[in-house]
Amino acid sequence: MSLTEEQRAEIAAHGQEVSSTLRPTVPALEAMLYQPLEVLDHGFLRVIDYMGDDGAIVQAARVSYGRGTRKVTEDAALIRYLMRHRHSSPFEMCEIKFHVKLPIFVARQWIRHRMASVNEYSARYSILDNEFYLPAPEHMAAQSEVNRQGRGETLAPQAAAEVLDILRGDALRTFGDYERLLDEKEGYGLARELARINLTLNTYTQWYWKTDLHNLMHFLALRIDPHAQYEIRVYAEEMLKVLHAWVPQTAAAFEEYRRGAVTFSATMMSVLRRMLAGEVVEQAASGLSRREWDEMQASLKG
Amino acid sequence: MSLTEEQRAEIAAHGQEVSSTLRPTVPALEAMLYQPLEVLDHGFLRVIDYMGDDGAIVQAARVSYGRGTRKVTEDAALIRYLMRHRHSSPFEMCEIKFHVKLPIFVARQWIRHRMASVNEYSARYSILDNEFYLPAPEHMAAQSEVNRQGRGETLAPQAAAEVLDILRGDALRTFGDYERLLDEKEGYGLARELARINLTLNTYTQWYWKTDLHNLMHFLALRIDPHAQYEIRVYAEEMLKVLHAWVPQTAAAFEEYRRGAVTFSATMMSVLRRMLAGEVVEQAASGLSRREWDEMQASLKG
Amino acid sequence: MSLTEEQRAEIAAHGQEVSSTLRPTVPALEAMLYQPLEVLDHGFLRVIDYMGDDGAIVQAARVSYGRGTRKVTEDAALIRYLMRHRHSSPFEMCEIKFHVKLPIFVARQWIRHRMASVNEYSARYSILDNEFYLPAPEHMAAQSEVNRQGRGETLAPQAAAEVLDILRGDALRTFGDYERLLDEKEGYGLARELARINLTLNTYTQWYWKTDLHNLMHFLALRIDPHAQYEIRVYAEEMLKVLHAWVPQTAAAFEEYRRGAVTFSATMMSVLRRMLAGEVVEQAASGLSRREWDEMQASLKG
Amino acid sequence: MSLTEEQRAEIAAHGQEVSSTLRPTVPALEAMLYQPLEVLDHGFLRVIDYMGDDGAIVQAARVSYGRGTRKVTEDAALIRYLMRHRHSSPFEMCEIKFHVKLPIFVARQWIRHRMASVNEYSARYSILDNEFYLPAPEHMAAQSEVNRQGRGETLAPQAAAEVLDILRGDALRTFGDYERLLDEKEGYGLARELARINLTLNTYTQWYWKTDLHNLMHFLALRIDPHAQYEIRVYAEEMLKVLHAWVPQTAAAFEEYRRGAVTFSATMMSVLRRMLAGEVVEQAASGLSRREWDEMQASLKG
Repeated sequence: MSLTEEQRAEIAAHGQEVSSTLRPTVPALEAMLYQPLEVLDHGFLRVIDYMGDDGAIVQAARVSYGRGTRKVTEDAALIRYLMRHRHSSPFEMCEIKFHVKLPIFVARQWIRHRMASVNEYSARYSILDNEFYLPAPEHMAAQSEVNRQGRGETLAPQAAAEVLDILRGDALRTFGDYERLLDEKEGYGLARELARINLTLNTYTQWYWKTDLHNLMHFLALRIDPHAQYEIRVYAEEMLKVLHAWVPQTAAAFEEYRRGAVTFSATMMSVLRRMLAGEVVEQAASGLSRREWDEMQASLKG
Repeated sequence: MSLTEEQRAEIAAHGQEVSSTLRPTVPALEAMLYQPLEVLDHGFLRVIDYMGDDGAIVQAARVSYGRGTRKVTEDAALIRYLMRHRHSSPFEMCEIKFHVKLPIFVARQWIRHRMASVNEYSARYSILDNEFYLPAPEHMAAQSEVNRQGRGETLAPQAAAEVLDILRGDALRTFGDYERLLDEKEGYGLARELARINLTLNTYTQWYWKTDLHNLMHFLALRIDPHAQYEIRVYAEEMLKVLHAWVPQTAAAFEEYRRGAVTFSATMMSVLRRMLAGEVVEQAASGLSRREWDEMQASLKG
Repeated sequence: MSLTEEQRAEIAAHGQEVSSTLRPTVPALEAMLYQPLEVLDHGFLRVIDYMGDDGAIVQAARVSYGRGTRKVTEDAALIRYLMRHRHSSPFEMCEIKFHVKLPIFVARQWIRHRMASVNEYSARYSILDNEFYLPAPEHMAAQSEVNRQGRGETLAPQAAAEVLDILRGDALRTFGDYERLLDEKEGYGLARELARINLTLNTYTQWYWKTDLHNLMHFLALRIDPHAQYEIRVYAEEMLKVLHAWVPQTAAAFEEYRRGAVTFSATMMSVLRRMLAGEVVEQAASGLSRREWDEMQASLKG
Repeated sequence: MSLTEEQRAEIAAHGQEVSSTLRPTVPALEAMLYQPLEVLDHGFLRVIDYMGDDGAIVQAARVSYGRGTRKVTEDAALIRYLMRHRHSSPFEMCEIKFHVKLPIFVARQWIRHRMASVNEYSARYSILDNEFYLPAPEHMAAQSEVNRQGRGETLAPQAAAEVLDILRGDALRTFGDYERLLDEKEGYGLARELARINLTLNTYTQWYWKTDLHNLMHFLALRIDPHAQYEIRVYAEEMLKVLHAWVPQTAAAFEEYRRGAVTFSATMMSVLRRMLAGEVVEQAASGLSRREWDEMQASLKG
């Protein structure tokens, strides 16, 4: 992560203005507020603001007048019930806002989640920094042979080093040219909105991103998944830590009913019933394709 | 407004749990937090939570690291610029949550605003209170003759009293029957989800409603309008007061560029140019329909 | 269902204007177009327009230039894959529009699905017909004792008849008063937007409702569920027939991977693994609550 | 535009499957169906499907049973009324789907419109073509000095040629390296999802993009604007032609009430009233900033 002195000072100053509030407040999340969580080589994730807590979900579900006087265990049970039965609207009652620094190709995946608000740093208006993502050698992997959109074996050290040289070389060259295109004295004074088209997709951008708790969990469910690209998954993993700090009961229910849950199709259910009745079912007689059969067996092994 | 003692106590207790926070905090809105603002005969509006302030809009627009060190006048100028040019995304960075008690027919108009989250009190699950909206005599108006969806003259006192009797009588009778349908001992023990279908549309319901600042202003622009039905407009008017307390710079820009602004069509613009050139334009030669002509003249008079 | 002669004639005329088109066309759905499918005592559902077919989903998923030359079995396999892995965006590429006549209390549940477009008949602008929903005796049920938002036993015939009298009596009276409030000569000439507040929630309204295939299936998954209120479930059941006529491969995948699928929580999965390993697991030692245990056992029995 | 023979054949075949339909059909749009409209150097826009026409808007606004028997002039008047008063829901009842080939930096602006469905060609799954956007000399402009996010003077021919060389050189090199990274035999067999991060932002991508008529007009209003970047504006201009072919009455109303309309702020309105009263108002005494004053004068000149 590469913050300038000035940026660190701004963040530090911001994190010292304490106010009194009657709003629900979460000390564990206050402790994380504004602090950058490092992701990838130059990226970060910072919680900028939040609204609501576990209690706010319960309060909305009950449409109650006060904070509620129920016991903690009752609240947790209600949250589990809501999560289990996919009653999503009470979870929409909490909101969180992040400042994220991320490579453009990650931003392009991320933005596909439409139920969020975004303010991105504008390269039409401003000049980008010379920062681009370069994979660490251990994440430099060959195309998967079984999964058309996945990674397979890690590259041999020598190959990884050569790939790194290519990526770094191209990023440096295109960025250098970007600066030359922009430069009004030594270069061409080209409009920013045009010069930026020369940058590579691993260039870092940043944005403010805000969503509600329901949509945050939907994002997490999709992006923590092992099939998600590594470079977005690491952001999701940091956000999952934020989730546990912010709304611990909801996070526990999320682990139980969403992340750790398994869905079986109608045919899988009939296979399962046969297995539980003692039958030894084989794929050929299961009604499942080879791929679905394998997925089912993997789920049952855990 | 009819809050029970218990409800008042819950609200009072809720309003005394002070916490420390590093989040942006707005004292003028904190002072209103949880307190019911009375609307109509039994309705209310309460601010339950909020996220962000005027500064948060500026911060998001600039994608800045800290709170920003610019002057207040610069911030106000940026907010005015954003509002004027309909850059809506920075306003989406603030969020507010209300608890609202409102007649069902108002709820049906309100819910048409989809960019919001809602948790409504469930009449499948719970039993509604015997509360229904009855218009005050001065709002008891005849069908407008010029506007098919508006009100005209106020009814004469005698007629208004008779209408009130009819509305009250029907609401009392249907509610009494609702109770009889539900009653397991003296009545029929009918399922709640069925019994409620007997209630009239002026019965009060309540919900938690949460939206972002951009969509709140869109709601206000439509519902403060004199063409909005009186019974929803009074809620919008209370919300406008909340807007001014919460984000005074944004509220000022809203008054200047949205609420007080006038849009002229292409043809109106050509009429306007002729007028400014000294020509005396008449409707017949204006290219405008009679209705549009009248609207334009009304706007110019102010 | 109560259509006037004039309405029937309008529908019939509409259904005879044949055009040539290059767009994907589904004969089975064309055969249903404009025809009212009866629902409840006076309600209906009509398909007014549609866009796309099974092939359009495949085409979008492949971002292809033409209609695609793949075999039908390959297309079906891709659709199954997309459904199984919750790749929802290709399903958003199909769209359908309905004209629905439905009781207001059903409309209030329905509108909670925000990812749709709605144009409702306006009772501010027009006068409603004297039509209201009355449950058939076999759907007149007592409050459930196990499910706070459900129905239990059917009422005894005598009680059902009495309940019906109450509901009918109140609806007739409030509608009669509605007419009297509106009547400019014999009544009060009250504004329509006010008079309507006297109507009961079982009064019929109607709307045009349009959504995409992904959101249609989401609606169906929630509203076909046995826990949905009967009066909205019957609409969902008619829509499911439309789904099968329109996109048969997608509908088959929906039955397999959504409607017939079962999701087990993390704890349920560990119980399942123990059971498959031959252990006799009891609820007390399962880590599941009684309710979750029962739900799991019910799923395993099918 | 660079379509392969195979792609042209697929498009041609697609455009010959004529069906009969009872749905509203627009001959002028049928004539454009599937045909690529060229945009920029390698981009295009193709209408893939549509739903509804001008009549469908009127039908939804009236919630009518048939196609409606009103006169064309009445329909046009209603459409004008709906547009003028921002009654947007009837316009949501029409839908259109495009296949678009566009540079990635344009795609990044475009995707900010969230009220649409998108299926993009996946560079995780497939390999991109060697196609990138290079501005024509007449669009190669210097940074604007008055508008921080705009273009100023066109570059001198020699400078434009040099800039072109830089952009072309970098795009060719990074694409060559992309191929080398991917190549399993002569290169590194790097995973596609990683190799693509080396591409520049002017690389072409493509997607299926679907939205409703209301949101299409919102997109057009923002992207046809002279302040929009040239490279997205040219797509909007082609879409505007599609709009006129598809829904001519709506398109005419759009030109009159949206594109050709001008909005004056509260302060501008007071200035206007003074001017119409014969006063010679100067900026200093207007209450307007210099920039707003200039904007107002420009609007009045037309």
